[in-house]
Amino acid sequence: MLPLAARCLRSLSLPRSPHPLCDRGLLCRRVRGAPRGSAAGGRSLVLKTPKGTRDHHPAHVVLRDRLLATVIACFKRHGAAPLDTPVLELRETLVGQYGEGAKLIYELQDHGGELLALRYDLTVPFARYLAMNKVTNMKRYQVAKVYRRDNPATTRGRYREFYQCDFDIAGQFDPMIPDAECLKVMHEILSDLQLGDFIIKVNHRLVLNGVFAVCGIPESKFITMCSTVDKLDKMAWEEVRSEMVAEKELCPEAADRIGDYVRLQGGLELIEQLLQDPELSQNKQAKEGLGDMKLLFEYLTLFGITGKVRFDLSLARGLDYYTGVIYEAVLLQQERQPGEEPLGVGSVAGGGRYDGLVGMFDPKGRRVPCVGVSIGIERIFSILEQRLEASGEKIRATETQVLVATPHRHLLPARLKLISELWDAGIKAEMLYKKDPKLLKQLQYCEDSGIPLAAIVGEQELAGGVVKLRDVRTRAEVDIPREKLVDEIRRRLQP
Amino acid sequence: MLPLAARCLRSLSLPRSPHPLCDRGLLCRRVRGAPRGSAAGGRSLVLKTPKGTRDHHPAHVVLRDRLLATVIACFKRHGAAPLDTPVLELRETLVGQYGEGAKLIYELQDHGGELLALRYDLTVPFARYLAMNKVTNMKRYQVAKVYRRDNPATTRGRYREFYQCDFDIAGQFDPMIPDAECLKVMHEILSDLQLGDFIIKVNHRLVLNGVFAVCGIPESKFITMCSTVDKLDKMAWEEVRSEMVAEKELCPEAADRIGDYVRLQGGLELIEQLLQDPELSQNKQAKEGLGDMKLLFEYLTLFGITGKVRFDLSLARGLDYYTGVIYEAVLLQQERQPGEEPLGVGSVAGGGRYDGLVGMFDPKGRRVPCVGVSIGIERIFSILEQRLEASGEKIRATETQVLVATPHRHLLPARLKLISELWDAGIKAEMLYKKDPKLLKQLQYCEDSGIPLAAIVGEQELAGGVVKLRDVRTRAEVDIPREKLVDEIRRRLQP
Repeated sequence: MLPLAARCLRSLSLPRSPHPLCDRGLLCRRVRGAPRGSAAGGRSLVLKTPKGTRDHHPAHVVLRDRLLATVIACFKRHGAAPLDTPVLELRETLVGQYGEGAKLIYELQDHGGELLALRYDLTVPFARYLAMNKVTNMKRYQVAKVYRRDNPATTRGRYREFYQCDFDIAGQFDPMIPDAECLKVMHEILSDLQLGDFIIKVNHRLVLNGVFAVCGIPESKFITMCSTVDKLDKMAWEEVRSEMVAEKELCPEAADRIGDYVRLQGGLELIEQLLQDPELSQNKQAKEGLGDMKLLFEYLTLFGITGKVRFDLSLARGLDYYTGVIYEAVLLQQERQPGEEPLGVGSVAGGGRYDGLVGMFDPKGRRVPCVGVSIGIERIFSILEQRLEASGEKIRATETQVLVATPHRHLLPARLKLISELWDAGIKAEMLYKKDPKLLKQLQYCEDSGIPLAAIVGEQELAGGVVKLRDVRTRAEVDIPREKLVDEIRRRLQP
Repeated sequence: MLPLAARCLRSLSLPRSPHPLCDRGLLCRRVRGAPRGSAAGGRSLVLKTPKGTRDHHPAHVVLRDRLLATVIACFKRHGAAPLDTPVLELRETLVGQYGEGAKLIYELQDHGGELLALRYDLTVPFARYLAMNKVTNMKRYQVAKVYRRDNPATTRGRYREFYQCDFDIAGQFDPMIPDAECLKVMHEILSDLQLGDFIIKVNHRLVLNGVFAVCGIPESKFITMCSTVDKLDKMAWEEVRSEMVAEKELCPEAADRIGDYVRLQGGLELIEQLLQDPELSQNKQAKEGLGDMKLLFEYLTLFGITGKVRFDLSLARGLDYYTGVIYEAVLLQQERQPGEEPLGVGSVAGGGRYDGLVGMFDPKGRRVPCVGVSIGIERIFSILEQRLEASGEKIRATETQVLVATPHRHLLPARLKLISELWDAGIKAEMLYKKDPKLLKQLQYCEDSGIPLAAIVGEQELAGGVVKLRDVRTRAEVDIPREKLVDEIRRRLQP
C-alpha cells in the first residue's frame, strides 16, 4: 500500500551515517572560514532542541511519510474529509477536558491578549470545531502534531511533540455502525503496515459503570475507578487492588468483586455470559453496554475481523470524555530478529465513543455523538526504525533520477542548459555546484546518493547533438539524440 | 503538475455551503437531545480559534494540499531532502535573529524548565540544525507552519499561524550556481501554479552597501538603511526620503543621492552601466556585488528565465541575516474576471543568501554559506480561493468512489459485507450509517457528495450472485457478477 515513489526508493542503498544524506559523500567538507559576507560571532549558545522534541533527519521524514501515506490512504478509503485546526487553542477550550492530563498542557506567555495553549490532542479541537460551526455530522481525519509536557521516554517513542492520526465520525446514527467502522479502520491500518500480529481490546464504559455499581461503588467514583482499572495494562492485579483499597478507600471485598469482573476476556460468548449474570443483567447501564457490545460483535463478524478483537473488561482508557465503546490495539511480541532490540510492545492505537464532548462546547448544550480512533504513529515509527536498522536497509532521502555531468573543463554552461531542459520536462535532476568538477567525483556522487542515471555532455556530444546516458549500476553508456533524452529517461525509470 | 487524484476531483461539482461537505446534504440534522450517554453541561465558553488563526475546512485543505504538492514536487525535482524540525525552539535560539521582528515571537510560559518559543520562520531552525549536527552541506526543503504575533490582515492572507515552504542550499560552492538554482525554483513554482504574470526582483546586499558607502552613510547604519529602502515597495520615494532625513538623520543631499541609485531597475545592461559608474566601481563591496550579479544573470540566461527577472536596486528585504543576493517574486495585476475581487497583488516568494547565520550558532564560529527561497503559500492560497469562488467551481472534500446501497429493509448485513470486501480491495467506499435507509436518500447522497458510482445489493442481487452497479451521473445500471465487481469499478474509474 506504499505510494509508488516510496516503493521505488526501497531498492536503493545508501552510505551509513547518523544522518544519511545530510553530509553527502564527497561534497562534504568542513568550512573553517568563508571568503566573504559579514563576520559572524560564534555566540556561546546551547545547541539543542527543546526537551522531549527532536529534529527528523531526511531519511526519517521519508520513512515517516510512507507510514503516514498508508494511514491517510485508509482514512480516505473510508470517506473521511481532511480538517486542519490551529496548533494554538484558547486555554479555556482545553482546560477541564483531560482529567489528570491537564497539568501537561503547554501554556503560552500572556502577551496581553487572549490566553493560549498548545493543543493536547486532536479530539477536543474537533469537538470545538463542530460546536463552533454548528456542524452536526461529519466524518473527518486529521494528521498533526500535538504537545504534552510529559516525561519523555524517547527510546520507546514517547516525545513531547508527536504526531496523532485521528479518524472520527460525528453524528446521530443507528447504533454501533460507525463504532464498528472505527475498529475496521484500526484493523486495516495495522494490517497494511505489516507490523506483525496484534490484538484489539474492546470494552464499554457503561459495562464498566455497571460492574462498579453492582460492586457497590458510588457513581461519583466511576471515573477515578476507570483510571485505576486502566493500570491493569502495566501492573499486576495485586498492585491495582492495593491502590483501590489504600488510595481509593474501597473495602477489600468490593475490590475483589471488581477484580473478578475486570479480569474477564473473551468474545461473543463472554457477552452472552454476562448478559446472564444475575447481578449485571439487573443493572440498566450494564445491560445497555452489553447490548451494544453484542451488536458490535455482529457487525465485526460481517467485517471478518473478530479474530483479532477481544472483549476485555480491564480496558478502561484514561480520558474522562469517553461514554461508550472504548478500544485499544496492542502489538503482540514476536520472535526477534538477530541484532534487533527488544521491542517496546504496547498500545499503538486507541479510541472510543464520546457523546458528551461537543455538547460541552455548545452554548445550548446540543449534543453531537462522536466516535473515533487515533493511530499512535510515533510508537509504530520507533518499531519500524529499529527493524530497518537491524535489516541494514538504507532509505534514500532524495528522489533524484539523473545527475547532469560533464567530462572535462569549461562546460558549466552546457550543464546548466541541459539540467534546465530536464527540470522543465519534469525530470528530477541534480548537478554538482562546481564550475569544473572531475567526472569521477560526479559519478561517485551518483553512487553515494543512489542516483540511477547520469547524463553526460562533453564537446563531442555537444557537436554530435547527443547526450551520453550512463546506467550508474551497470556502468553501460549509450549516446541518445538530445531531443529523445527525456523520453529515454522516462522509459528507463518506468517501474 | 497536480497529483492525479486531485486532478480527477476537479471535474465534479458540489453544493454551495460555507463549509462544503461538512454538513453533508441529506444527512444534515440538528441534534437537540441525544438518547444516551452522560449529561453535558453547555458551559459558557468563548467558541473561537485564537486571534489571527483559523480552521481549514475540508475543501480548503484539499485545495491547499494541491498547492503544496506542486511546490514539493518542484523541491524534489531539484534534489532536495525533507527536514522536519520542532515547532518549539529554545528562546535563545531565536532571540536576536529577526531585528524588529523579535517582538512578534510567541513565547511559552516558564513551566520551570527550558525557556521556549514557537518558531518564527524555518531558516533559523535550519541554521541551528546545521550547526548542531556539524552538517556542512545539505540541500533541504521544509514545508511547515510558523508563528508571528503580527497584526493579522486575514483578508489578504496574513495570519499569525501560516505555512512556509522553504528550499535552501547550504555549503561552500562555486559562486552563484546555487543562487541561480533558487531563482529557477521560484520561476518553476510560479509558472506551475499558473497564477498569471509575475516578476522576480533581484538585488545584492553588497551593492546596496556600496551605494550607501558612496553616498556617505557610515557602515553602522547600513542595516537600518536597508529596512528604510525596503519600504519603497509600499511607499512613494518622497515619503521614504523624508523618513531618511527626519528619522534616520541623513542630510538631504545624501538621501537624494541614494534615491538616484535605488530607483534604478534593469537587466544585464544596468549591471554593466553600474560597473562603469565612476564612484561605485571604486567601492570594493559594490564591485564584488556587481560581479556576482553579472555571473548570476549569465546563469539565468542559460536557464532561459531572464525575461521575468529584474535587477531592482530598491529591493532590500527586511531580515538582518542576508549577506548577498536577495530576491522577491511579485504577481502582476491582471485583468479581473467579472465578479472577482481586486487581488491583493504583492510578494508571493522571496529569499536570499545568508552566509553568516550558521556561524552564529557554531561554538567555533565555523561558517556554512547558505542561500534559499521561501514560497508564501498563504497569499497564493487566498488568490486561488478568490478565483475558485468567482469561477463557481466546487471542490470535493472526499475521494469516495462508490456508495454501497440497499434498495429495501433488513439488508444492513449485506451492505456491511459488501463494503468490507471493497475496502479490503482498496476501493474508496461509503455507506449511510442507518439500518434501513431509503434508496432515494442513498442516491441523493451520491449526487450531493459527488460519488460517481453506487453498488446496490437487494434480495434479488444476493440470490443471483450479482451487484447492481449504477453510474450516478447517467443513472445507467448494470448487473455485475460479484467476483468481477472490484475490477469493473477500477475499470470505470480509470482516468
